[in-house]
Amino acid sequence: MKPPEEKDYVQSLERGLSVILAFSDRRPRLTLSELSELTGLSRPTVRRLVLTLERLGYVRAEGRRYVLTPHVLALGNAYLSSLNLTEVAQPYMEDVTKVTGHTCSLAALDGEDAVFLTRVPSRRVMRHTLTTGTRLPAFATSMGRVLLAWLPEHEIEEFLRHAPLPRITARTVTDPDRLREILREVRARGWALVDQEFEEGVRSFSAPVLDSGGRAIASLSMSVPAGDVGVAEIEAETLPVIVEAAREISKQLGAPASG
Amino acid sequence: MKPPEEKDYVQSLERGLSVILAFSDRRPRLTLSELSELTGLSRPTVRRLVLTLERLGYVRAEGRRYVLTPHVLALGNAYLSSLNLTEVAQPYMEDVTKVTGHTCSLAALDGEDAVFLTRVPSRRVMRHTLTTGTRLPAFATSMGRVLLAWLPEHEIEEFLRHAPLPRITARTVTDPDRLREILREVRARGWALVDQEFEEGVRSFSAPVLDSGGRAIASLSMSVPAGDVGVAEIEAETLPVIVEAAREISKQLGAPASG
Repeated sequence: MKPPEEKDYVQSLERGLSVILAFSDRRPRLTLSELSELTGLSRPTVRRLVLTLERLGYVRAEGRRYVLTPHVLALGNAYLSSLNLTEVAQPYMEDVTKVTGHTCSLAALDGEDAVFLTRVPSRRVMRHTLTTGTRLPAFATSMGRVLLAWLPEHEIEEFLRHAPLPRITARTVTDPDRLREILREVRARGWALVDQEFEEGVRSFSAPVLDSGGRAIASLSMSVPAGDVGVAEIEAETLPVIVEAAREISKQLGAPASG
Repeated sequence: MKPPEEKDYVQSLERGLSVILAFSDRRPRLTLSELSELTGLSRPTVRRLVLTLERLGYVRAEGRRYVLTPHVLALGNAYLSSLNLTEVAQPYMEDVTKVTGHTCSLAALDGEDAVFLTRVPSRRVMRHTLTTGTRLPAFATSMGRVLLAWLPEHEIEEFLRHAPLPRITARTVTDPDRLREILREVRARGWALVDQEFEEGVRSFSAPVLDSGGRAIASLSMSVPAGDVGVAEIEAETLPVIVEAAREISKQLGAPASG
């Protein structure tokens, strides 16, 4: 991942991006010394990077500390708008939430995580407020499993060999061989259902959004309280709404009709 | 903005970020030559930056072209999570949408634009799908005017001197002196109402979200069809819901009680 000696590698770009990524909910305001510690870069290097980011409008000084500015969103927006997916998906997702009464989410795969692109929340009070960019482990979530299931075989094997598969709840499947089987089933059926493997009391299910090349570029998903909605009911009533919406979005994106 | 000769300026960081920003809905897949043209950088420079971004997981090759990956969202997420604002605001925004039946939005100021941080959509079909990171001109939108009105005096003057103030609809106020007056009224009243200055047939209104220093870090806003809801009705019924929610969010963020 990191060969600083290679002539085609621009190390200061990597370092500048690592400065942006050092900020988080637990560390929203950082001094140069703190940034130096968090990034492992020398203080003079961090200072030059921060001054550059400040000049470009990505960070702002607050006394001795620095904070990120909304300008950083322009970077994520370059991705979201180039994807053109959220715009196509939004009306279908609003329909899904209207019909089912549950929050509908769209996610993409980034390494070992499923990343929320956009959500249409239901009226219910949510325990979690998951916004664009929030990451969840792909192996234990329905939205992640759909995305994994559509990867080329060798990438699935790569994932199963290297991704951490921690036990998150008592039900989490952590055995790579069992996961391989599950991903095959998901691919064959065309959807994933995860029963309290990521969070006790929550069932989630997802279907793939395919592009014109038949690749799963995103997954459409829904989570429901396990106490309210049984697996049989999900499979009979709610899941088909998600599967159908994902198929419609895929069609809009030019996916082959077979889905 | 751009003194490449200064020793504290890391030019390759600026250039790498400009490569990310070159992608958009109209240009989602770019060759090295196209990127070179769009950024004004030489092809060898662009190639080194793209290879670096590819190695870091921000771009992916598709044949001769490159596309951004969801990993780019991690950058925007560093800002959103460090802000801690969307998490605080989300439940209040859900209440607002529930009570009013209209989409509720949260935005921040970035230069001359108001940038959407998050939205809670209503059940109505929306004509626009505005996602996190979407930018609208601050001077002609209620969410922008609230943010401008709370700027320090000299920053307002700076804005009025330099920002483009194009006529967007027949009603758009484009005179800097008139805008200055409007911003003073907005500040004095504590909210902004914009009547079809940004879009024919749409009225919008906003209130500021203040941090512990009393600065407006975001605005809470709502747009309604002009045909459905009159100005008097907005001021009597819907606006107070927004103003109250913005005040509650501000209180959670430690803003002084005066609001």
